[in-house]
Amino acid sequence: MKLSDLAEITNSIIEQGNTDLEIESAAGLDIARRGQITFLANPKYTPQIKDTKASAIFLNENVELERADIAVLRTKDAYLAYTRALRAFNPEPEIVPLIHPTAVIHETAKISLNVEIYANVVIGANCEIAESVRIYPNVTIYDNVKIGASSVIHSGAAIRENCEIGVNCIIHNNTTIGSDGFGYAKTEEKSWLKIPQTGRVVLEDDVEIGANSAIDCASVGETRIMRGAKIDNLVQIGHSCTIEEDALICAQTGLAGSSIIGKRVILAGQVGIAGHLRVGDDVVITAKSATSHDVENGKILSGIPAFDNRDWLRSIAAFRRLGEMARTIREMEKQIRHLSSKK
Amino acid sequence: MKLSDLAEITNSIIEQGNTDLEIESAAGLDIARRGQITFLANPKYTPQIKDTKASAIFLNENVELERADIAVLRTKDAYLAYTRALRAFNPEPEIVPLIHPTAVIHETAKISLNVEIYANVVIGANCEIAESVRIYPNVTIYDNVKIGASSVIHSGAAIRENCEIGVNCIIHNNTTIGSDGFGYAKTEEKSWLKIPQTGRVVLEDDVEIGANSAIDCASVGETRIMRGAKIDNLVQIGHSCTIEEDALICAQTGLAGSSIIGKRVILAGQVGIAGHLRVGDDVVITAKSATSHDVENGKILSGIPAFDNRDWLRSIAAFRRLGEMARTIREMEKQIRHLSSKK
Amino acid sequence: MKLSDLAEITNSIIEQGNTDLEIESAAGLDIARRGQITFLANPKYTPQIKDTKASAIFLNENVELERADIAVLRTKDAYLAYTRALRAFNPEPEIVPLIHPTAVIHETAKISLNVEIYANVVIGANCEIAESVRIYPNVTIYDNVKIGASSVIHSGAAIRENCEIGVNCIIHNNTTIGSDGFGYAKTEEKSWLKIPQTGRVVLEDDVEIGANSAIDCASVGETRIMRGAKIDNLVQIGHSCTIEEDALICAQTGLAGSSIIGKRVILAGQVGIAGHLRVGDDVVITAKSATSHDVENGKILSGIPAFDNRDWLRSIAAFRRLGEMARTIREMEKQIRHLSSKK
Repeated sequence: MKLSDLAEITNSIIEQGNTDLEIESAAGLDIARRGQITFLANPKYTPQIKDTKASAIFLNENVELERADIAVLRTKDAYLAYTRALRAFNPEPEIVPLIHPTAVIHETAKISLNVEIYANVVIGANCEIAESVRIYPNVTIYDNVKIGASSVIHSGAAIRENCEIGVNCIIHNNTTIGSDGFGYAKTEEKSWLKIPQTGRVVLEDDVEIGANSAIDCASVGETRIMRGAKIDNLVQIGHSCTIEEDALICAQTGLAGSSIIGKRVILAGQVGIAGHLRVGDDVVITAKSATSHDVENGKILSGIPAFDNRDWLRSIAAFRRLGEMARTIREMEKQIRHLSSKK
Repeated sequence: MKLSDLAEITNSIIEQGNTDLEIESAAGLDIARRGQITFLANPKYTPQIKDTKASAIFLNENVELERADIAVLRTKDAYLAYTRALRAFNPEPEIVPLIHPTAVIHETAKISLNVEIYANVVIGANCEIAESVRIYPNVTIYDNVKIGASSVIHSGAAIRENCEIGVNCIIHNNTTIGSDGFGYAKTEEKSWLKIPQTGRVVLEDDVEIGANSAIDCASVGETRIMRGAKIDNLVQIGHSCTIEEDALICAQTGLAGSSIIGKRVILAGQVGIAGHLRVGDDVVITAKSATSHDVENGKILSGIPAFDNRDWLRSIAAFRRLGEMARTIREMEKQIRHLSSKK
Repeated sequence: MKLSDLAEITNSIIEQGNTDLEIESAAGLDIARRGQITFLANPKYTPQIKDTKASAIFLNENVELERADIAVLRTKDAYLAYTRALRAFNPEPEIVPLIHPTAVIHETAKISLNVEIYANVVIGANCEIAESVRIYPNVTIYDNVKIGASSVIHSGAAIRENCEIGVNCIIHNNTTIGSDGFGYAKTEEKSWLKIPQTGRVVLEDDVEIGANSAIDCASVGETRIMRGAKIDNLVQIGHSCTIEEDALICAQTGLAGSSIIGKRVILAGQVGIAGHLRVGDDVVITAKSATSHDVENGKILSGIPAFDNRDWLRSIAAFRRLGEMARTIREMEKQIRHLSSKK
């Protein structure tokens, strides 16, 4: 790809270098070779610039470069530009239409012509599979499921009855979409009576779900993952939750039922969210934290239970010395008793 | 269904309304329509009663209703009665006997006539599948497994050799029953030598296991999940554990090996239980907590490590101000030094 | 097996008993029967020796036995010797060469003659399956995967494109090897743009991965699990991590991307490791702890965030009384004010 083409698709300006320079791929500063483009986003890596073998580099607007032998693409966000370059150099392969003879597809399912359906895939009654969808081996799709165009379902995934997957979604291996919510009523004999879970899961467009995650259907109505939300591996989403647009939910996070996660929220790894609450837009909850209360828009929270991240940083700093603090307090009590007896 | 029939199956008494009133389904207070029955269990939702469009309502014994246009079913536990109504309106579909031609069933397996075995299911040697069992696509059942009547195994589940599943159990998608326990001895070279895991897993009757959970077999003997226990998604049960009757284990909880969880225990989400301990009957351990010690019957515990929930509530309240407490202590030390020097 | 043979394979010396004594299996002290060998490693179980029905016992070098009717095998590490005995009595079954007719194997895949490939296994283009490999039903192996000799892949596992599995590895059910790393760049519209994940996962020899775990491929290059590392159920390994030799990672632990776990490290259950850090050799991080910093070799850490285990034990002891400490501090403040006013 010519440097000028790369500049165009990455919203960058050629500040230095030949517009016809051929760039063949993209790689990090330390491993990039001749013919590759790299990037600098984190100032921590600035020293690596003088040694990089890359032929071109994306630079943020306020960064200087003291090498004349590297083409410079100036851009607002070097990391984003680099990601766009990586995507240009690693395009999704074209669909090669295929329905493997071992796939078991119910006669009432509507399958578009231009799809890849691999070996041992099972598709239930009344499903609708849109064009350019890829379904890898050993996937099970229950009845009445819709899968939107260009979505990819990886091997071993299960999509339960009535669920709906949007356009351009990716579901990784062995993930379960639409399993029963965990709901029981206690009987007179203190046993648990299962509450029917009759709802479904809806994934809107551009949603990605990692491997081995479980997203429960609603008891009634919908569990909904909204446009652009990204969910990592081994995540639990309880029944009737709503994950709003562009939320990012990292690995091993778990949500109980009926909670709402706002737009652009980031839940870091192993976070816990109790049921029936709302986490406001743009909130960040740091790794291993948990909340059982609503969270206002824009907050950064930490801890179990979670509170303001700056306060938490002070609390955990003190916590390391808590044994010593306890001793100090006992000592001060003695001194005060002593002082009081003398006064 | 007539109101009188509904009253009978839910152990309720018609206090107001026509016994012949036709009720067609059940729904929550806020979304119930004409022809539906709803319930009030949590006083927090009492204000919604005046606006509900439901035709009938389950009410606990001490709750007043100021609307004459709604039939009232009076009962001891409105939530339980509502659950029974939901179950009556959403019965499990009848078994339609089927063994899909792509299912691979070992010739020595004994399969009852009245079962549903879907596409690409694999069943090993000497298995016994009782009547009214449903096994969804792409399930793998290893050799010598027994599955009791009316149990349901969802797609992608794996049931390893020698395991036994009781009557009326449900195993959700991609769950693993009977994988090897995590046991190694350290060699002279500080490598790990695998300890053979030759035991099995037994699920007694009425057990439900969520999606993507992993229940390890015992090293020797049994890992046992007793009658009525309910286990959520992404739960880890280590080798040789025993989960006693009606215990409730929420998502992403993990148990190390050889621990015993007592009757009716509730382990909330993301709890951790160390190995070789006993959690007594009726214990509640709140979300994200962990214990490495035995727990007496009836305790409510929180924290890492867990202790009495009321004490924990006081500790976490103080923890939020721990940075400030540390400063206060330093300040008091100065003042005491000052006072001491003056005395 | 004769006692003398057992002594030889377990590096033990017959101190008491007949070298021709027939031992048929091995079991724990409390359940061992006539004809079995048992062991004592933990002094806590010493009282059980007087009642055991075992015919022989492994004993560590400094342990006394006051029974003349039990053969004694003296050894440096009774637990290790017992494990070796268990392995001798429970050998892996011989390979019975089999490629099930329902397996779907790409014509370009190279499959050794001496393998077991069960029903509905799918193997992609250019894969290489070495001798004595077992692949259980419903496993999916994407293109260009290599599996080393004598490895076992359990049902439902997914091995994504280009991954490499060493010799003598075990991968349990429904585990995913090589799913996409969780990497996105933020666009101008605050949406997430997927960063192509073009790397792979390499498992070296003697690696075991539990059930329902997810090991992401590198964005570029490799995620590598080195020789002898053991990983439990429901574990998350982020993109581009390296797990060094003989590390032990317990259930539900999660690693973010690009971290390095040193040799013989033990990460107990539900631990969290942030990205881009190094945990030094021989470190132990106790259950439910988390670190976002490098850890020096040999440390034992606990807490969120983790610090020295002994300090943590003091801190958590004080934490239980933190509500009381807060009250004591308020009380002391009053007393100091009182004293100051009087001075």
